[in-house]
Amino acid sequence: MTQANSPVKVNSKEVAQELLDQYDTFLFDCDGVLWLGSHLLPHINETLEMLQSHGKKLYFVTNNSTKSRTAYTKKFASFGISVTEDQIFTSGYASALYVRDTLKLTPGKDKVWIFGEAGISEELKLMGIESLGCNDPRLDEPFDISSSPFLKDGLDPDVKCVIAGLDTKINYHRLAVTLQYLQQPDVKFVATNIDSTYPNKGRILPGAGSMIECVAFSAGRKPAACGKPNPNMLNAIVTAKKIDRSKCCMVGDRLNTDMRFGIEGKLGGTLLVLTGIETEEKALDSTGDHPLPKYYADKLGDLYELSK
Amino acid sequence: MTQANSPVKVNSKEVAQELLDQYDTFLFDCDGVLWLGSHLLPHINETLEMLQSHGKKLYFVTNNSTKSRTAYTKKFASFGISVTEDQIFTSGYASALYVRDTLKLTPGKDKVWIFGEAGISEELKLMGIESLGCNDPRLDEPFDISSSPFLKDGLDPDVKCVIAGLDTKINYHRLAVTLQYLQQPDVKFVATNIDSTYPNKGRILPGAGSMIECVAFSAGRKPAACGKPNPNMLNAIVTAKKIDRSKCCMVGDRLNTDMRFGIEGKLGGTLLVLTGIETEEKALDSTGDHPLPKYYADKLGDLYELSK
Repeated sequence: MTQANSPVKVNSKEVAQELLDQYDTFLFDCDGVLWLGSHLLPHINETLEMLQSHGKKLYFVTNNSTKSRTAYTKKFASFGISVTEDQIFTSGYASALYVRDTLKLTPGKDKVWIFGEAGISEELKLMGIESLGCNDPRLDEPFDISSSPFLKDGLDPDVKCVIAGLDTKINYHRLAVTLQYLQQPDVKFVATNIDSTYPNKGRILPGAGSMIECVAFSAGRKPAACGKPNPNMLNAIVTAKKIDRSKCCMVGDRLNTDMRFGIEGKLGGTLLVLTGIETEEKALDSTGDHPLPKYYADKLGDLYELSK
Repeated sequence: MTQANSPVKVNSKEVAQELLDQYDTFLFDCDGVLWLGSHLLPHINETLEMLQSHGKKLYFVTNNSTKSRTAYTKKFASFGISVTEDQIFTSGYASALYVRDTLKLTPGKDKVWIFGEAGISEELKLMGIESLGCNDPRLDEPFDISSSPFLKDGLDPDVKCVIAGLDTKINYHRLAVTLQYLQQPDVKFVATNIDSTYPNKGRILPGAGSMIECVAFSAGRKPAACGKPNPNMLNAIVTAKKIDRSKCCMVGDRLNTDMRFGIEGKLGGTLLVLTGIETEEKALDSTGDHPLPKYYADKLGDLYELSK
């Protein structure tokens, strides 16, 4: 046994086996763990197949809100990985659950204004909740305060909540109308997730958190954040899938979201992989303000390579 | 005399006269004080003419960085107000001064990446400093990490500073490239101003501060802010115009920028007008975290109307 707070590197068959033996359920972050953008990382399929052949249950927990769970199954399929919708939890889905179950919006009556992408609106639609904004092409037009179709007849009084997330179609029109709704004190404010950046093709790009910060600052409000590391997301998964937390391991590439999610959620294990945003130095740095994982590995595929 | 910290309302001929007698120089914020967007407020021309006829010196100090000082003189002229360029100080100009005089960038060699509008690039150009980004139409194209002309051949190593300000052409392409420059530790980070919002046609719209917050959060950095209430801007004006601070009054519509600018800059007077962002209730609220003005008025034109 190693001492507490000293992460163990998965770099031998013995450590890999020790890790596999302890857990019957694995929760995976996707981007930075399984793939980087459209590039699959090495030996991912083999690792997931090995885990399934050992009877492990696999769930995929992503803060990417741009795609719905249905769209995500297609992304997995494009990499030759067979995953069903009920194995996937996105921050867009978590936000929709929060709006329905915690904020108690009434389907068929109350509406949501979305600053974000289709991964949010599609999940709301499945729950019967109508949304406005999002990828509406009229928002692609330059903003004119007098003629914007979202303002000229006033705000929609049925909008009871704003959900904000990553929106690569961010523009002034979307920001300005979102702010008008957030200025209504009775309109709730929900954020998909707070990641400031995400990795893509060797670069670090602006994430949901940075855009949400923009609308939050202009409105002088703080949102309820639904994605990792918020415990509501883990509670929903644990309840829906009847997971024994002590036998569950969270696998991710971020200390402040994925590892925090697993540790504060009192999961038995956490595994940090270094294929995404973090470095080995940071993974071992006990002086930072981030929690340390139980295990770390250069890449997820090492579990397969070391177990062969 | 009224007690300290209790703002006096300019609502009689006597108070108006008392105010006029004390100061020989007036600094005016523009938007929310002289006009709202393209709508001139009542009796502005008459008030400015009256002040000039009494020998007062007038300067215009705006956190609007979208227009250069030259462009601002045209805006004044469109309202029938005759103002010369050397009476105008914008936050874009203040940022350019900061880059040249404090950061000591070398004109003709060092470059600036701009997330913002032409009011910044035009001021830099007058100083012989080349800028990139800004309103370059190639940034209007959708962002593609592999083909962006600003990334595919690498970043420009001559860029030594990022200036960020209000950009109504904000999009993911601009945000993503700005972040790449901010990830370079030796590239300085300057913000035109920190106003979270600004008023326009009865609505509150997202301001420079909210957009700067977006890039600052993704980069994990804090900028040096140049506009009001930063004392550097006031110091530059006081020095250039040889102003006696005790005989100078700042007129504005915001407690946290304009009034703070005047009070922390130890000007003799401050006058808050209620035609912009603040309410009478807030102007009198001594429990808030904002400084209180010496005087306040429903509108600037009251100085003229009460003095007739």
